[in-house]
Amino acid sequence: MHNFLSQLPQDTTQEHFEAIINTKQTRIERIVSFGQTSPDVGWYDQHENEWVMVLEGSGTIEFEDGTSKTLSKGDYLNIAAHTKHKVTHTAINEPTVWLAIFYI
Amino acid sequence: MHNFLSQLPQDTTQEHFEAIINTKQTRIERIVSFGQTSPDVGWYDQHENEWVMVLEGSGTIEFEDGTSKTLSKGDYLNIAAHTKHKVTHTAINEPTVWLAIFYI
Repeated sequence: MHNFLSQLPQDTTQEHFEAIINTKQTRIERIVSFGQTSPDVGWYDQHENEWVMVLEGSGTIEFEDGTSKTLSKGDYLNIAAHTKHKVTHTAINEPTVWLAIFYI
Repeated sequence: MHNFLSQLPQDTTQEHFEAIINTKQTRIERIVSFGQTSPDVGWYDQHENEWVMVLEGSGTIEFEDGTSKTLSKGDYLNIAAHTKHKVTHTAINEPTVWLAIFYI
């Protein structure tokens, strides 16, 4: 049995992206962050919608309009395609486990 | 901010299905069970694939070949389209919160 919260990567110097399901229409990813954020410059600008939930830790997503949302355990939000966003903060002292579902 | 683990339904006499995302290709559902199982007769036989994870509680899924899997917190599995299955057990003393993603 696979477990989303176990066998977290040991290397805390980088963010880890793992595609669990990957079809033409749908991608389910586990993302594990250890304090990493998006690059200082630029935005994620995706042609797919993204539904994202934090399962452990916490993370802050900022949008181009200047608003931001901090997600803790169980919090989720939907990011429509081409809504520019970036991750400006993730927890420092614990892993942040994200579930991201990209869909059309 | 929406939270997947809060505002659980109060009515424990039935299972609750809530579609969070629903497009032609992808459906994201929260299912909350309070000891309920599938009907005694018949199987789920879906034309979509289903990726399912338990976030709280536990549940057992049985397959037509007689095998079964019990999922606890963080456990997930993928059920290919038309793989007949049913839920034969969910936790009695606590809610079981399932995340189900139906996709093609």
